[in-house]
Amino acid sequence: MVSKNQIKLITSLQQKKYRKEHKMFLAEGRKVIQELLQSNFELESLFATSAIFPEINPNKINLVTDAELKKISALATANDCLAVFKIPNQKEKSDSGLIVALDDIRDPGNLGTIIRLCDWFGIKDLICSEETVDIYNPKVVQATMGSIARVNVSYLNLENYIKETKLPVFGTFMDGKNIYKTELPKEGIIVMGNEANGISATIEKLAQNRLSIPRFGDLQQTESLNVATATSIILSEFKRNF
Amino acid sequence: MVSKNQIKLITSLQQKKYRKEHKMFLAEGRKVIQELLQSNFELESLFATSAIFPEINPNKINLVTDAELKKISALATANDCLAVFKIPNQKEKSDSGLIVALDDIRDPGNLGTIIRLCDWFGIKDLICSEETVDIYNPKVVQATMGSIARVNVSYLNLENYIKETKLPVFGTFMDGKNIYKTELPKEGIIVMGNEANGISATIEKLAQNRLSIPRFGDLQQTESLNVATATSIILSEFKRNF
Repeated sequence: MVSKNQIKLITSLQQKKYRKEHKMFLAEGRKVIQELLQSNFELESLFATSAIFPEINPNKINLVTDAELKKISALATANDCLAVFKIPNQKEKSDSGLIVALDDIRDPGNLGTIIRLCDWFGIKDLICSEETVDIYNPKVVQATMGSIARVNVSYLNLENYIKETKLPVFGTFMDGKNIYKTELPKEGIIVMGNEANGISATIEKLAQNRLSIPRFGDLQQTESLNVATATSIILSEFKRNF
Repeated sequence: MVSKNQIKLITSLQQKKYRKEHKMFLAEGRKVIQELLQSNFELESLFATSAIFPEINPNKINLVTDAELKKISALATANDCLAVFKIPNQKEKSDSGLIVALDDIRDPGNLGTIIRLCDWFGIKDLICSEETVDIYNPKVVQATMGSIARVNVSYLNLENYIKETKLPVFGTFMDGKNIYKTELPKEGIIVMGNEANGISATIEKLAQNRLSIPRFGDLQQTESLNVATATSIILSEFKRNF
């Protein structure tokens, strides 16, 4: 059963304002919840249509009907389970290795996919500008497929961060050096820009290393790659020789 | 103005069955419509909140209100224009060069992103199994950002196609050869599998060349890359030396 107050709290967590206020976020679907349970995230409450998580004391599972789950779900098609987790404190970011920094990524699906890519390529730290979509947005949590538990994400003033770093800073631009023909280091910050506007002018000035992904289509109209697919190509290039 | 009959026809085109019956599909947003207008697609009708396409005779634009556009739009947030185009006949596929083949891709966003990637990497032909999501699904058209006009997409029996081809066939599998250390040819068919199940058993038997994208994360849980990001890494590897 889900009480009226629970419904109110849970649906409020679809909004960033209330996630901040309550320090909680939503996760849906077995795969994502399972990964969060196995990591250090602290479970607040769990709703499921049957006792599907053997590692959880059945008394701790709120059994609900499909109709009840639909009421609290943030998804167009509800799964068979929904969990509320506590938002952990932001961990200290490291200042070494390969780091991805996002300059105002707005689409939740893109952020989720980039977190999944960071996890795949062993990137420990993801830096997000303050305007980047919230990592605890339900659509982001969903798109990470659980990788959210393994990548350390920090929100901060990107300009100050890049001004202070000692690592080389890389960005992709139309006039950059062919990434396939550039020797890439083991350490550095890779900045990925906003979906519509690319890397902002302030950050562009600070990115000393201008790269480009060559285009092979013979027509001029193909303007850009989606930011998540561009990130995958860039990470693959940085990692392929190590 | 939009008549009741027009609303009925246009909204019916959100379904594959009616797209097939009327041989028409929907495109929304300036960028996508512009690209289709500039290519060989035949315009059936155009609805817009103002005369935004200078190349189109203003008499041919149906001026509509925001509310009317919302009624006919397939998107959650309507744009300022919507067009109906004729579905062209399937073109003859070529049998040379690099070809991407999709084994039951179900997500419209993934198919759209893969079409955009093919365009970027100069892949002329995309082969889709009959179970792959319809290229004229409004969400696919949207995600291609206009690339749909420049990639030749054929739906066919994938098993027969692969049995008959003389080109080498490549697939990615957990136990495949490290793609970063494999010499890749200029010509071949790259098969990408379904989001949940990967490449089907029948097609796996026919893929002589087993590749894998190495994983760099140090934890075992990261199971897979999204199919569109995997495609971008694979195409980048096939193209980077040419």
